[in-house]
Amino acid sequence: MTVNQMTTSSFAKLPEPPYYSVIFSNQRTPGDNGYEHMADRMVELAAEQPGYLGVESARASDGFGITVSYWASLDAIAAWRSHAEHRIAQEAGNTLWYQHYELRIACVERAYAKRV
Amino acid sequence: MTVNQMTTSSFAKLPEPPYYSVIFSNQRTPGDNGYEHMADRMVELAAEQPGYLGVESARASDGFGITVSYWASLDAIAAWRSHAEHRIAQEAGNTLWYQHYELRIACVERAYAKRV
Repeated sequence: MTVNQMTTSSFAKLPEPPYYSVIFSNQRTPGDNGYEHMADRMVELAAEQPGYLGVESARASDGFGITVSYWASLDAIAAWRSHAEHRIAQEAGNTLWYQHYELRIACVERAYAKRV
Repeated sequence: MTVNQMTTSSFAKLPEPPYYSVIFSNQRTPGDNGYEHMADRMVELAAEQPGYLGVESARASDGFGITVSYWASLDAIAAWRSHAEHRIAQEAGNTLWYQHYELRIACVERAYAKRV
């Protein structure tokens, strides 16, 4: 994938604030153990949920990653959190995929950008 | 660096919410052009500012990265934004280092973790 293609796809296209963000920083365990497949499925499934606005994600080669998902409301976040298929993924995240994670829910109040 | 060392250093140790976050997602231009040196310096300098709480950062091999810095207040963020040496770095970021970025200021309301 070229840099230009990544620029198109990596950034979330969001409305004006306010909206909510879920900042999920995490350290992967070694090995895949079904992670990539489930991660792709969760991105796809999240995008179908009411109130979903977008997602941005980066993972370094050492396995440390940050995923920020954006939502219209706290209710939308709570509904996604309790989604049955997502709960199965959360369980596997706790037992298999993440050595450590921090999850923070934050209300975006202001936004700026440099776009080419 | 081993996974265990990264776990120690990659996660910010933060107080209980509320506090503020600056979510900076960005696509690097090709080449270094002084970026790594300045990025290290900005991490060092930010940590000396009043109200600084911590930082987490991940960049993928395609040059897309997310850095989230954490602050005690909006005033602390505004002061850091207008810091003279940081402004020079911002200018170089606009002209040299970032093809595209999005900067979002968000108030963290809740936090959860899995820690080993």
